[in-house]
Amino acid sequence: MKHDIVFYTNPMSRAAIVHWMLEEIGQPYRMEVLEFGSPMKSPDYLAVNPMGKVPAIRHGDSVVTEAAAICAYLAEAFPEAGLLPAPEARGDYYRWLFFAAGPVEMALSLKHAGFSLTAEQEMQFGCGSYEAVVDTLARAVAGRKYIAGDTFTAADVYVGSHIGWGMQFGTLEKRPEFEAYWAGLKDRPANLRCEAFMAEAMASQTGADGQPTAL
Amino acid sequence: MKHDIVFYTNPMSRAAIVHWMLEEIGQPYRMEVLEFGSPMKSPDYLAVNPMGKVPAIRHGDSVVTEAAAICAYLAEAFPEAGLLPAPEARGDYYRWLFFAAGPVEMALSLKHAGFSLTAEQEMQFGCGSYEAVVDTLARAVAGRKYIAGDTFTAADVYVGSHIGWGMQFGTLEKRPEFEAYWAGLKDRPANLRCEAFMAEAMASQTGADGQPTAL
Repeated sequence: MKHDIVFYTNPMSRAAIVHWMLEEIGQPYRMEVLEFGSPMKSPDYLAVNPMGKVPAIRHGDSVVTEAAAICAYLAEAFPEAGLLPAPEARGDYYRWLFFAAGPVEMALSLKHAGFSLTAEQEMQFGCGSYEAVVDTLARAVAGRKYIAGDTFTAADVYVGSHIGWGMQFGTLEKRPEFEAYWAGLKDRPANLRCEAFMAEAMASQTGADGQPTAL
Repeated sequence: MKHDIVFYTNPMSRAAIVHWMLEEIGQPYRMEVLEFGSPMKSPDYLAVNPMGKVPAIRHGDSVVTEAAAICAYLAEAFPEAGLLPAPEARGDYYRWLFFAAGPVEMALSLKHAGFSLTAEQEMQFGCGSYEAVVDTLARAVAGRKYIAGDTFTAADVYVGSHIGWGMQFGTLEKRPEFEAYWAGLKDRPANLRCEAFMAEAMASQTGADGQPTAL
């Protein structure tokens, strides 16, 4: 069978989000694992993603980068997988996909790097303060099984990954709302397959400090 | 006529992106202008957006925040406006919407704030280096009238805003690729209406340094 999706990845990266998404979609795909450093900056790969970053996918003539974009793209390209929300939940769907890809990414990265923002910078930066971002994320998932409507969607793969792995790697504080939401997602067979793959990859590649080389 | 879209905005903010998008959509909307500071942090508005930021829209029962999410949502909610790309261009559409909302926002904000990343942080941060982000954005628009397919879409409103206003306010360097792309967008009637509104608002509110109070 022709595998017409190519998945450019490294298990120690945000590409794990896309791995989970691909497992949910259930279509065949071919995985190309790229090491950090020169393989990810080779001319061949820069032609796919000039950022020299994973994840990326090629599907037919389309090349898509950015984990959230790939989730949104795949949900739409394979509607039979049922990972798009009902029309009345599309507002929440886009809202939380972009909130996680923008403010959550930025606020958690800044905090992890030890940068702190002045009050004026909190106005200028889309993410505002770390506290506001984490509070908003907690309110978004509080009491909800899924973040957009009543069904599991690509937004749960993306936001759930940030929450689950953020708590696991210590970039996101643990809160009861996050733990309850993640508990409802983490045992999905697609995620368990992805976690098993990642655990195996980490066991063989982990650095001396036990941390993945890049998130 | 019932105006069933409410647009929460301040002209000196990223909400100007959504203003342009609403003008392209051509549906009636009611604008609620919120001043920075306590009006944006009032309990009433925090119920709309717990971040206490503009833009936000309410459309029927949906509340959507994040400028890119609002663009994607409106394009889909009003397909008759023709701001969605053809199916074969959906990969580019999501790719560049999320690239601008994530890496471009982050890299330009970091640079504007004077933060610089170590080589390790460039691996950890989704935006990598400022140079990689700007190079990638320039390649995305080089020789193109529109960023996703052959027609003007919501992705052009969003990416075009970052490029046009980024060059205007000095947060994005000028490059021939950016100037050519922006030249093909800036005279759209919807944008001109939005710019006229913003110019009037800035004339009445601009600070002593001639800069808007927040981007």
